[in-house]
Amino acid sequence: MTQSEKLESFYSRLSELHHLNCISALLGWDQRVCMPPAAVQGRAAQREYIAVMAHRKATDPEFSSVVDELYQEIDSLSEDDQVNVREVKRQLDIDRRLPEEFVSEMSQASSVGYSTWQEARPRNDWESVGPLLERTVKLSRQKAELIGYEEHPYDALLDLYEPGMTTSILKPLLLKLADELRKIVPSVLQRFANVSPLKGDFPEETQKSLCHRVALDLGFDLRWGRIDSSAHPFTTTIGRNDVRITNRFSRDTFIPGLYGTIHETGHALYDIGLPQKWLGTPLGSPVSLGIHESQSRIWENPVGRSREFCVYLSRLLPELFPEFATTPDELWNWVNLVQPSLIRVDADEVTYCLHIVIRMLLEERLIVGELAVADLPEAWNDLYVEYLGIRPPDVKDGVMQDVHWYSGSIGYFPTYALGNLYNAMMIESALLAIPDLYEKIEEGQFAEFLNWLKDNVHRHGMRYHGRELIKRITGTDLNPDSFTRYLRRKFLPEGV
Amino acid sequence: MTQSEKLESFYSRLSELHHLNCISALLGWDQRVCMPPAAVQGRAAQREYIAVMAHRKATDPEFSSVVDELYQEIDSLSEDDQVNVREVKRQLDIDRRLPEEFVSEMSQASSVGYSTWQEARPRNDWESVGPLLERTVKLSRQKAELIGYEEHPYDALLDLYEPGMTTSILKPLLLKLADELRKIVPSVLQRFANVSPLKGDFPEETQKSLCHRVALDLGFDLRWGRIDSSAHPFTTTIGRNDVRITNRFSRDTFIPGLYGTIHETGHALYDIGLPQKWLGTPLGSPVSLGIHESQSRIWENPVGRSREFCVYLSRLLPELFPEFATTPDELWNWVNLVQPSLIRVDADEVTYCLHIVIRMLLEERLIVGELAVADLPEAWNDLYVEYLGIRPPDVKDGVMQDVHWYSGSIGYFPTYALGNLYNAMMIESALLAIPDLYEKIEEGQFAEFLNWLKDNVHRHGMRYHGRELIKRITGTDLNPDSFTRYLRRKFLPEGV
Repeated sequence: MTQSEKLESFYSRLSELHHLNCISALLGWDQRVCMPPAAVQGRAAQREYIAVMAHRKATDPEFSSVVDELYQEIDSLSEDDQVNVREVKRQLDIDRRLPEEFVSEMSQASSVGYSTWQEARPRNDWESVGPLLERTVKLSRQKAELIGYEEHPYDALLDLYEPGMTTSILKPLLLKLADELRKIVPSVLQRFANVSPLKGDFPEETQKSLCHRVALDLGFDLRWGRIDSSAHPFTTTIGRNDVRITNRFSRDTFIPGLYGTIHETGHALYDIGLPQKWLGTPLGSPVSLGIHESQSRIWENPVGRSREFCVYLSRLLPELFPEFATTPDELWNWVNLVQPSLIRVDADEVTYCLHIVIRMLLEERLIVGELAVADLPEAWNDLYVEYLGIRPPDVKDGVMQDVHWYSGSIGYFPTYALGNLYNAMMIESALLAIPDLYEKIEEGQFAEFLNWLKDNVHRHGMRYHGRELIKRITGTDLNPDSFTRYLRRKFLPEGV
Repeated sequence: MTQSEKLESFYSRLSELHHLNCISALLGWDQRVCMPPAAVQGRAAQREYIAVMAHRKATDPEFSSVVDELYQEIDSLSEDDQVNVREVKRQLDIDRRLPEEFVSEMSQASSVGYSTWQEARPRNDWESVGPLLERTVKLSRQKAELIGYEEHPYDALLDLYEPGMTTSILKPLLLKLADELRKIVPSVLQRFANVSPLKGDFPEETQKSLCHRVALDLGFDLRWGRIDSSAHPFTTTIGRNDVRITNRFSRDTFIPGLYGTIHETGHALYDIGLPQKWLGTPLGSPVSLGIHESQSRIWENPVGRSREFCVYLSRLLPELFPEFATTPDELWNWVNLVQPSLIRVDADEVTYCLHIVIRMLLEERLIVGELAVADLPEAWNDLYVEYLGIRPPDVKDGVMQDVHWYSGSIGYFPTYALGNLYNAMMIESALLAIPDLYEKIEEGQFAEFLNWLKDNVHRHGMRYHGRELIKRITGTDLNPDSFTRYLRRKFLPEGV
């Protein structure tokens, strides 16, 4: 085959895989948003059929050797093709190192783990999930060995979610962050000592209108997107110009529903900002979970929880909730309320990363075998006392609160913290480019900031890995200082 | 291969094809109900990808020869396997007779025809569609020759939609029907001379509640189904226990929205009544378009437009539309209003089949070459004068009113009339089995009738073709007498 024939065959297979991934996304979206309940078994069979087909097409020997050959001649390719070949080769190398039996064992363990966790958590039933988690940890260790690593087995797992990330970079970063956070938490807590959470009566339909309005103001567009409800909010890309988000609401407060929507809108704006003509190739794909999370959190937190955004919000609210009177300051207190909490997903901006540091420390110890799964609940509780000053009363709100480990995702949690570090660094650069950014936010004008993100983050697809990208944008290596600086300025403007 | 290996390979391929068909149905449903508008091109590529894959899997030589071999030893198969092999072979023979280039030319002509018709119809623009229709007719003639027929080229096309149907059976049947209808139309028209259509103000949300309530009463179940809105109502099966209908509403009357919903509910009850364990095989598939249409129309007309159903409805309405006062008799007049009309889809029970007879006569003449496409608009108008006493003022409401011919479906229309004949014969038999059927309807009790349909129609899948099935149910050959008897009893109880 000539090089151009190889490239043609390469891109044609990527396009097939893209169709299958989109179909798989639609089957998943429909299941969570539309599908009638009795269809669940039939849907599982449809999803498995597509997953098996995609796996075969992604790893078949003919495609494999086209990728290898293109990689050997990578220097003679165009810059764009180089990125695509490099990234597909990277992923293929991982896939090829995992034997089919291992993949199927892992996927079975994940799905049993998921459903068992789902039933066991409300019952506070650690006995049911413990042995399954032991198997998952063992399989994850095996996975790390199969994939390979240079320094640390945890590296192989981190790299799956955040390409290029290693324990030796991540751990000092997050420990330094934790130290800083623990310094500021007591003063911040004091500041909110007299604030109680918002409680009122906010009909779901009106909350939906508010969320629609805000998402559209931020740049979400119903010509290429949809907003629906589902049990757990998520964002998914179904195809070219088709990005969908979901939200959920509690009747007594509009804050989680609204900020969930802003978060998912951030994910969606990244997905639609990726070069649509490269969709289905690495150049049209998100960099990593950490960068994806930076895009949701940058809208949710530095933008959405700013005083200026509260001014913008306070202009929208009276129309929708005429009986609810509030001020921007009061709103700011509600949306920023810092309280030590047991539950990661309910955590505020200041304590959130401490939840992640605890998980990172435990994951590392599980993977190297320093910690037995049987001792995990106790180790979890001890770290909660150490880092957050509270001891979970049970496993439901302790070690069993998140599905990740039980469904086989070890190495995933750190990307949430990375999202915070990335976005804090980005917003500092954005402020240099758009000095009146926060005045614009107050006016409800978000287009210039979105364009900045498109230009600096979205349009590159996977051209740069996360740390490269952030250095390109900010001129600085990934570090926790921007984030802690941001928190100090915001919550302790007079200093600790 | 042993016979059991052949059967395994046979059923495994059917199951793959079933997955692909379901995915294709989901892509279609989502496009019409959910998809954001800018995604249309990407979706077309996804649908084509699945269609090409399904076509390849349905016609590949290995599968082909398994089917042929099983067909040769069909007598040694179980009764169920015999049906499945017979029907798959029947379809495969048709597919194999159509060369790939022909299929692709036909599908291109259909899609160009469809989109041109869509734009040209509102403009009354026959010039744009005429030449395309000429090509479609030519291709349809070619299709008939490729598929083959014993007596008449039109047979090959009829058989695609109604297996086993031929011109020599259909034509005398529909002409006899037309004669009878033309005898009764004048007296029926007279009866409705002083009735004017319902006009009021019926908010869409309330109409939706009414439709949901009625569909659920008829036996539709949200555990295995969904009801949504779309530009044109339709029913689709997305998988096992997943049948979805759509409806649309006009603000000034609830009747088309409600009866559209009842119609689609009938389709859905058939789909879900098919043996779900045989889904994806002929034993889990509908017999034909005519039988499918009998299942929608039996609920819409003999059930839904009966006096007893109007009593049931008149109990539901006051709660939903408190300002709208009516009586069962007034309702009956509105839902049954007979008026000569230009438009098939707006036609009443009495004149509906005359619209079909006109189309059948024209299709036959087009296919044998007795009528040139250029002369079609005039021939259409002449037949409307002859059969319905009205001359269409333009092509928009004349020969261009339906998409079928322009999108390549010739031979499809007669199935609508067959639906009426089948359902009138069925309801006579159902009344013998359930003498108090109409009392039950008045009480809003539909379960016994649904069970009768399941038992007599749904559970057989494609075990019998339409004419066999109706003879099994009624003991009588397919004929128009039950239908005309039904109309006479209903509309002219005192005789003509």
